[in-house]
Amino acid sequence: MSATIPAQFTGQAALKKQDPKNFDLHETKYTPRAFTEEDVIIKIDACGVCGTDLHVMTCGWGEHDQFPAITGHEIVGHVVRAGKNSTHAVGDRVGVGAQGASCGECVNCKNHEEPYCIKGWVGTYQGPTGDAVQPYTQGGYADYYQGPGHFAVKIPDGIPSEVAAPLLCAGVTVYAPLSYYGAKAGKKVGIIGIGGLGHLGVQFAKALGAEVYAISHSDRKRADAATLGATGFINTHDGAEKVLAEHAASFDMILSTSDQDDMPLNDLYLPLLKARGQFISVGLPNDGLPRMGWSLLGKTVTGSLIGSPKEIEDMFKLAVESNIRPWIETRPMSEATQTVNDMYAGKAKFRYVLVN
Amino acid sequence: MSATIPAQFTGQAALKKQDPKNFDLHETKYTPRAFTEEDVIIKIDACGVCGTDLHVMTCGWGEHDQFPAITGHEIVGHVVRAGKNSTHAVGDRVGVGAQGASCGECVNCKNHEEPYCIKGWVGTYQGPTGDAVQPYTQGGYADYYQGPGHFAVKIPDGIPSEVAAPLLCAGVTVYAPLSYYGAKAGKKVGIIGIGGLGHLGVQFAKALGAEVYAISHSDRKRADAATLGATGFINTHDGAEKVLAEHAASFDMILSTSDQDDMPLNDLYLPLLKARGQFISVGLPNDGLPRMGWSLLGKTVTGSLIGSPKEIEDMFKLAVESNIRPWIETRPMSEATQTVNDMYAGKAKFRYVLVN
Repeated sequence: MSATIPAQFTGQAALKKQDPKNFDLHETKYTPRAFTEEDVIIKIDACGVCGTDLHVMTCGWGEHDQFPAITGHEIVGHVVRAGKNSTHAVGDRVGVGAQGASCGECVNCKNHEEPYCIKGWVGTYQGPTGDAVQPYTQGGYADYYQGPGHFAVKIPDGIPSEVAAPLLCAGVTVYAPLSYYGAKAGKKVGIIGIGGLGHLGVQFAKALGAEVYAISHSDRKRADAATLGATGFINTHDGAEKVLAEHAASFDMILSTSDQDDMPLNDLYLPLLKARGQFISVGLPNDGLPRMGWSLLGKTVTGSLIGSPKEIEDMFKLAVESNIRPWIETRPMSEATQTVNDMYAGKAKFRYVLVN
Repeated sequence: MSATIPAQFTGQAALKKQDPKNFDLHETKYTPRAFTEEDVIIKIDACGVCGTDLHVMTCGWGEHDQFPAITGHEIVGHVVRAGKNSTHAVGDRVGVGAQGASCGECVNCKNHEEPYCIKGWVGTYQGPTGDAVQPYTQGGYADYYQGPGHFAVKIPDGIPSEVAAPLLCAGVTVYAPLSYYGAKAGKKVGIIGIGGLGHLGVQFAKALGAEVYAISHSDRKRADAATLGATGFINTHDGAEKVLAEHAASFDMILSTSDQDDMPLNDLYLPLLKARGQFISVGLPNDGLPRMGWSLLGKTVTGSLIGSPKEIEDMFKLAVESNIRPWIETRPMSEATQTVNDMYAGKAKFRYVLVN
């Protein structure tokens, strides 16, 4: 091991379940589990702040006792130690997204569909390690990260680390389904929600060749959507009747980044689709999607979860070719508490990135 | 008009909302709307009995006052009058399924997706005609049927009329999505529900080249499923845990003909699918499909409604090539009342066909 890698890693941790009105993170050290020949250790340059981080710190998806919790799963840095089976070398610049490991053996893993691993999904943070010293994984609001090299993807030279970071989760979450399900020239694609995910969705759908409409619940993002490359804008606040009068049965695909509980799926989103059109949700409401009946006939509804290492690689190629850039604001890692509070307050436009 | 075509057509009609425990149909005459050059008049040889007929006669999908109601939308007969724009000639043997007309102008109609017409869907029975004499369409439990030739499809010589009848609704309802969404060699396809639709689903999926599993809630249909061509059988009464232990993430496609309100969609059906697998429902529960959350990630859920005239044509080709045959019992048209009561009692194996 290089002399410069400390025995303990230092992160900005939630020490207990957080109050969303007052996140309070503290510098905390932890000892990583024993290094294996599949692993890399990454010295972190930058880590994006994702809504999931806040959800986990506030136990929004269920109570848990995995505190201290160091979140952050949009990690970019340089390899400082590389196991001989890690497929990486010291000095490589790599990124890790929301998935830190998988079983590698199930039908989905073998088909390069690691996000849908059915036996051993491990989150980049809060994932089980089976290790006594470090029973669960810790994320990227930190100085170092250790994990399997298979889930560390090389970052092309053309993209600065802080720009690459949000692509590792927010980016691939929208890129993967748009690409897999055929957003391309001749297709009309709607992106619901112009925020951390949606502002990348507009850019990727356009880069893939589609005609892109931004779909938002107010006019606040209209100018931003045009800047991002949307050729059309739908304000759902106008009401389903008015929107459908102009746009019914005209979309081939709608990608929803919304987790709104009372989303107008049956009354608006599905009727916006042509026959055989596809609604893709990457932001599930807590209680799931509304029940669907007749509105579903001739339509397809899909859920999508992040993307595989291969899809992250493909995404970066397209991002370089098409100059896709998340809109970010960088903050020093030491200001994680303020940054997370600002994120919860909706001040991000559209993504914060913590940098060391 | 030929001298042999009566001015009034005679059918077996529900005169009022029916009690499902005691259907009571009566021979009733009606005057068809004025004939147009798009129309054909068909002298009916045979008409299948579909669950939808019973639903409509009992107002199961909502109260209506369209009585007398002559149902039946699996109609086969010979053209006895052909409008010059009807694309048919007197003497042609043709069939009409559940859709009697559409607007012909909307994006879906122009794309040959008539079942998803957004402006002018007209059911073969109970559809609006805009005509004072005959304000709504009447179906095939009758001697004659009149409707647009576009929705009358030529029946190949190889298939007797009473065998062709159930293919016009039950057949194309399963054939269309299996074919469109890619049931083929190398794919593992499950068919939920081995009844009027499902017994055809097994045959069509096999004819398309797929490996087929029948999925049923008891072992009663196990032998039938094997006879129909299924290579596997899943009894859901075994419980999700046991079924998933053997079959989790192994299906490419599952076609559900069930309208069970508490279907185990999240606990069983979706987990049976591989990543990118597709669940297709052709039998919606009254309240719609259950809400879906995490179980939907990496999966696709589709609703499908009958098939277009083009798909009916393609289906008949495959049915002839692969010798696909609905299992039917024929009854004289005059015994419509008893037949419908037997159908409601679940005695059909698997489809009744009324013949003149």
